[in-house]
Amino acid sequence: MSYDPENIFAKILRGEIPSTRVYEDDETLAFMDIMPRSDGHLLVIPKTPCRNVLDASPEQLASVMKTVQKLSQAVMKAFEADGVTIQQFNEAAGGQEVFHLHFHVLPRYEGVSMRPPGNMGDFEVIAAQADKIKAALG
Amino acid sequence: MSYDPENIFAKILRGEIPSTRVYEDDETLAFMDIMPRSDGHLLVIPKTPCRNVLDASPEQLASVMKTVQKLSQAVMKAFEADGVTIQQFNEAAGGQEVFHLHFHVLPRYEGVSMRPPGNMGDFEVIAAQADKIKAALG
Repeated sequence: MSYDPENIFAKILRGEIPSTRVYEDDETLAFMDIMPRSDGHLLVIPKTPCRNVLDASPEQLASVMKTVQKLSQAVMKAFEADGVTIQQFNEAAGGQEVFHLHFHVLPRYEGVSMRPPGNMGDFEVIAAQADKIKAALG
Repeated sequence: MSYDPENIFAKILRGEIPSTRVYEDDETLAFMDIMPRSDGHLLVIPKTPCRNVLDASPEQLASVMKTVQKLSQAVMKAFEADGVTIQQFNEAAGGQEVFHLHFHVLPRYEGVSMRPPGNMGDFEVIAAQADKIKAALG
């Protein structure tokens, strides 16, 4: 399977479509999921192309996981979350819908189930959550 | 939250309780999940102590992800899987039940949903799957 540079995360990286960014460094970008399954749900992606875990380089995996950790710690603080669920999907049968490597970081709260997938969030609420995450990152 | 050296994965690492190992290197161990949510469901853990992604070192994360990738590629080949779902749970609210960092590697098959959690698998079936994974690893 080859990488399609017209996938929506590639377009987000190129600034061709908007996103609510919360963190970036030389190798990675973190931005809010527009269909949040929990309050504060965000995505972490490498800035360089790869389809998923099956074709990623060790450097892409290491830098993305470093950012996943940083953002997991940040959402625990930002939302006084009780835990974090990390999900990562490979190929359509594995749950993947956008074919640029991404990790879901889902802040979790005692007694609160994840919402079903596929429901668009409220952009003002998501923007306010992004501000909290950025504040927690310092 | 501190690390409890009496968790079951620490006992597996020390060989105090059995597991069906499929891969190990100096830093990591991969073994079959005894309550498989898909055929070939396995776990990857670091050999050194940490609770989860929130307290892992960059080295632990990088080495574990390298093994997650290796095993993801292996299960695609071993089972002619159509995809892989990766899950990682942090703290009880995040879905964590054993407090030693672990990643779930779930081979996925077109049109087949994941089974519900908490159901013990058939040990002979799991052992046969482990053999296939080891063969795919070469």
